[in-house]
Amino acid sequence: MARSIGLIAALGKPEAAALADDVGPWLRERGCEVVSEERLRQGARPDVLITLGGDGLIMRIAHTFPDIPILGINVGRIGFLAMIERQQWRDALVDVIAGRYEVQEGPTLSATVFRGEGVIAEAWAINDVVIRSAMQMIDVEVYIDERFVNTYPGDGMIVATPQGSTAYCMAAGGPVLAAGVGGFAVTPICAHSPIRTTLVVPEAALIELVMTSDRAAVLILDGVPTLPLKRGDVVQVHRGEHRFRLVILEHMNFYDAFRSKFNFMIRPDAVPTLGPRTRRAR
Amino acid sequence: MARSIGLIAALGKPEAAALADDVGPWLRERGCEVVSEERLRQGARPDVLITLGGDGLIMRIAHTFPDIPILGINVGRIGFLAMIERQQWRDALVDVIAGRYEVQEGPTLSATVFRGEGVIAEAWAINDVVIRSAMQMIDVEVYIDERFVNTYPGDGMIVATPQGSTAYCMAAGGPVLAAGVGGFAVTPICAHSPIRTTLVVPEAALIELVMTSDRAAVLILDGVPTLPLKRGDVVQVHRGEHRFRLVILEHMNFYDAFRSKFNFMIRPDAVPTLGPRTRRAR
Amino acid sequence: MARSIGLIAALGKPEAAALADDVGPWLRERGCEVVSEERLRQGARPDVLITLGGDGLIMRIAHTFPDIPILGINVGRIGFLAMIERQQWRDALVDVIAGRYEVQEGPTLSATVFRGEGVIAEAWAINDVVIRSAMQMIDVEVYIDERFVNTYPGDGMIVATPQGSTAYCMAAGGPVLAAGVGGFAVTPICAHSPIRTTLVVPEAALIELVMTSDRAAVLILDGVPTLPLKRGDVVQVHRGEHRFRLVILEHMNFYDAFRSKFNFMIRPDAVPTLGPRTRRAR
Amino acid sequence: MARSIGLIAALGKPEAAALADDVGPWLRERGCEVVSEERLRQGARPDVLITLGGDGLIMRIAHTFPDIPILGINVGRIGFLAMIERQQWRDALVDVIAGRYEVQEGPTLSATVFRGEGVIAEAWAINDVVIRSAMQMIDVEVYIDERFVNTYPGDGMIVATPQGSTAYCMAAGGPVLAAGVGGFAVTPICAHSPIRTTLVVPEAALIELVMTSDRAAVLILDGVPTLPLKRGDVVQVHRGEHRFRLVILEHMNFYDAFRSKFNFMIRPDAVPTLGPRTRRAR
Repeated sequence: MARSIGLIAALGKPEAAALADDVGPWLRERGCEVVSEERLRQGARPDVLITLGGDGLIMRIAHTFPDIPILGINVGRIGFLAMIERQQWRDALVDVIAGRYEVQEGPTLSATVFRGEGVIAEAWAINDVVIRSAMQMIDVEVYIDERFVNTYPGDGMIVATPQGSTAYCMAAGGPVLAAGVGGFAVTPICAHSPIRTTLVVPEAALIELVMTSDRAAVLILDGVPTLPLKRGDVVQVHRGEHRFRLVILEHMNFYDAFRSKFNFMIRPDAVPTLGPRTRRAR
Repeated sequence: MARSIGLIAALGKPEAAALADDVGPWLRERGCEVVSEERLRQGARPDVLITLGGDGLIMRIAHTFPDIPILGINVGRIGFLAMIERQQWRDALVDVIAGRYEVQEGPTLSATVFRGEGVIAEAWAINDVVIRSAMQMIDVEVYIDERFVNTYPGDGMIVATPQGSTAYCMAAGGPVLAAGVGGFAVTPICAHSPIRTTLVVPEAALIELVMTSDRAAVLILDGVPTLPLKRGDVVQVHRGEHRFRLVILEHMNFYDAFRSKFNFMIRPDAVPTLGPRTRRAR
Repeated sequence: MARSIGLIAALGKPEAAALADDVGPWLRERGCEVVSEERLRQGARPDVLITLGGDGLIMRIAHTFPDIPILGINVGRIGFLAMIERQQWRDALVDVIAGRYEVQEGPTLSATVFRGEGVIAEAWAINDVVIRSAMQMIDVEVYIDERFVNTYPGDGMIVATPQGSTAYCMAAGGPVLAAGVGGFAVTPICAHSPIRTTLVVPEAALIELVMTSDRAAVLILDGVPTLPLKRGDVVQVHRGEHRFRLVILEHMNFYDAFRSKFNFMIRPDAVPTLGPRTRRAR
Repeated sequence: MARSIGLIAALGKPEAAALADDVGPWLRERGCEVVSEERLRQGARPDVLITLGGDGLIMRIAHTFPDIPILGINVGRIGFLAMIERQQWRDALVDVIAGRYEVQEGPTLSATVFRGEGVIAEAWAINDVVIRSAMQMIDVEVYIDERFVNTYPGDGMIVATPQGSTAYCMAAGGPVLAAGVGGFAVTPICAHSPIRTTLVVPEAALIELVMTSDRAAVLILDGVPTLPLKRGDVVQVHRGEHRFRLVILEHMNFYDAFRSKFNFMIRPDAVPTLGPRTRRAR
């Protein structure tokens, strides 16, 4: 049962603000405590956080108030994480209040940048840690658990969590890691070599990326350019201390979302043979 | 410390038999009990199994005597699993006898084939369970945990373990899963669709593949054609009860093997920047 | 202007036969000579051949009566080549009779199989010439213009024409060659190596594929298994003497077909910025 | 026979300058007129241009003095175009002087950028015309011959010539086009969609790329960032008026170079079955 519920609307989206004006009173009428972003900043920790916006808002909120389970009501174009469509909000919140939900946890990534003897940056990411060339081909060395893997010439390298694998990792030709896979995907970006195979490493792995070109490159965390990199910089990546937590209602289904968001239904006229719940001997 | 050691040479390889004639006495001189294939068949369970042959032999032995840690001494062309080169056997066995090794465990796959109401086959695999078209394009439906994922027209579908991911899975464009990743890779083979993204699912997942074409297709386990499939057959795949166990000596290194076996050193003249053991703050 | 028109309906499709009963008299009423399959077999060569069926029928007819321009009216599931939808047949044939069409020509492939000193098979293909392993990995050597390119371990090799490139070639990860590209695509199938780059070679190239494994493999032409191959067999492929000719009406558009048949519209809500005919300075 | 020979050494490479001091007199001794870069700037047009440097120098010289056949003597790390190794220069130039060479021609690309009603840039490229996002995902619409193909969300789009196909095009997963293929490869960069198939279009095609995002993107020609792009900019690409001409000596072999430069010999121990010149019936 969720009694204390955070409510945050996307800035600059009038529909989101308008929706908040409906959702807030509706929650209070049902006996919930509604926690504002301001109170969150003061340290309040509600049972669940409701975001009214797109995936970008979920990412921003999960960064700012980590570890609290989030349910995203989609007020945007494409919502992978914000899986509740706007018109379904009442049904969804009835389930949340009644406690009819699971929390799906995913790991985060911690990134530390070493330059010479010192540490010049520390940060963490929910989706991915990326080294990307600014304009021209760079070389990136990859080490897993202090073992040299290879030197990849190309546009850079992506380390992605399961929840981040449908973003840049998939675009670069890497796999999608379903929730619950205990691993990170290490995917080269446009490697100028025959080798573009993604390496999926265990969650406990130490991943080190060494920038070995003089050309301009940038460290990008969750899509946000964070730090220009220099030759010799070592970006050390491992599982972060925070967990990314999504509220999953019974009818929410990653595979449906995956198929429909990407127009991924290969044969639009195909009807699945097996019913959705025909449990078979196991 | 390993005192009881199984020793099996590849059939039909004179070099392997000759090597066995050296290795057996050498082990006994050092106080080890040497267990033959015959005694294994009678139920003997040594601490470690030494194979003299290639990856094929390791696979056969792991199927026949599951769960015993195996060390492969490579008497063959390419050895991914048989990582000890022939001339290194004495050093390797000194380490084994002294107990200076780890056992790397990987999951196996259990496959059950349903036709109509009945079960027509049950088997298990170390590397991969594959549905492959005999000659012409087939449709395969994929379900994960009883959720429909998609219908893939093409040459079929591969479910691979981490140890099997460098085989057909990688060939079909899928990722390599390092040892310890808690997941299986589900990779379409030459999907006649824009969608060829591999899905990596957790080890606990139930994977169901439904053959929905009238054309000829075959179930292949670990590279061995096992059963012709018919339209409507459901191949249910999940983690098997056995574990695949490899003996890993200190200097053995999957990434070195991966790079060298495939001629994977992209820049042959590149010298890794980071030393092999320059442990950094973590 | 087309006055002599061949008309062939797919066998075993009642809708196709019924449509033929409408189309034949309609053509004769407009002064056309309608040429039956029987008369084609006797040597008649109409200006245009109309097929009522799917892509399979077009392929069969183009094999049997090569070089005659074909217009396919789609009575089937997916029609890439049969681009006229069934209900549009009258408008399409009005254009054909009036001569408002172009003929799009594509090369064919000639394949000769050498075993030892002799030639054991000669055949030609419209879409592709394929060496495919029956069950297990095979090695195929590729030579272009008598230069060694590489040895590809895997499921085999595809040589595709532009019109065939949307079939197995694309499924295997290769490119689509638009009509008019003077080249063939040579694409490895599931190469068990980091290298899976397609090589597009000029139409004038001599492509030689050498089967160098003892395992079972088959030569497949246009999807039809044609000949079991043995170790040492050389499959020599070059541009065939026939041309594949498709009738293209003004509103027919490969890119529209490509996008819609494969559900290839990535952003279903996107409206193209540029109008269809906003000719700009060139 | 080549009597008039241009000679250009890479700037800032002492070995190249030293080599020029050897090559120049050697050519004059053999009765050749040696044409300097200065005289080329004044309009001299030698039969052949010799570059002493890497591929970068060949590219720069082909841009500055277009259409003259170039032979590159490799004084650099990796030379795809500069296929003559440094120590072979005498043998190579003997052949050049004697006229024992062919000229391999490739098309160039002309790019025109439209903004609103006007043209804001015109340029041409030897290898590729690229729209690349600066940091974040952009949308690029593709039109071929004024037909809409698709909207590609991702890192941008590459149009490559055959000689440019081994560069960024191959890195992005596209095919290699051998010399003589009458076409250009249109390859999306890390398309955030299931669709990443390259489209190879005929040399005569009009390719239009429309930037439809507000995010930063850059037009890059032959690897050189050329122009920041804005939403609505149309980049029109077609075959340029210049030809890229390479001098090919008898023993020069693209496939050997391709294999060795990229460490592309999949099975390092494999010996090709067919001799290099065993011409067979055709």
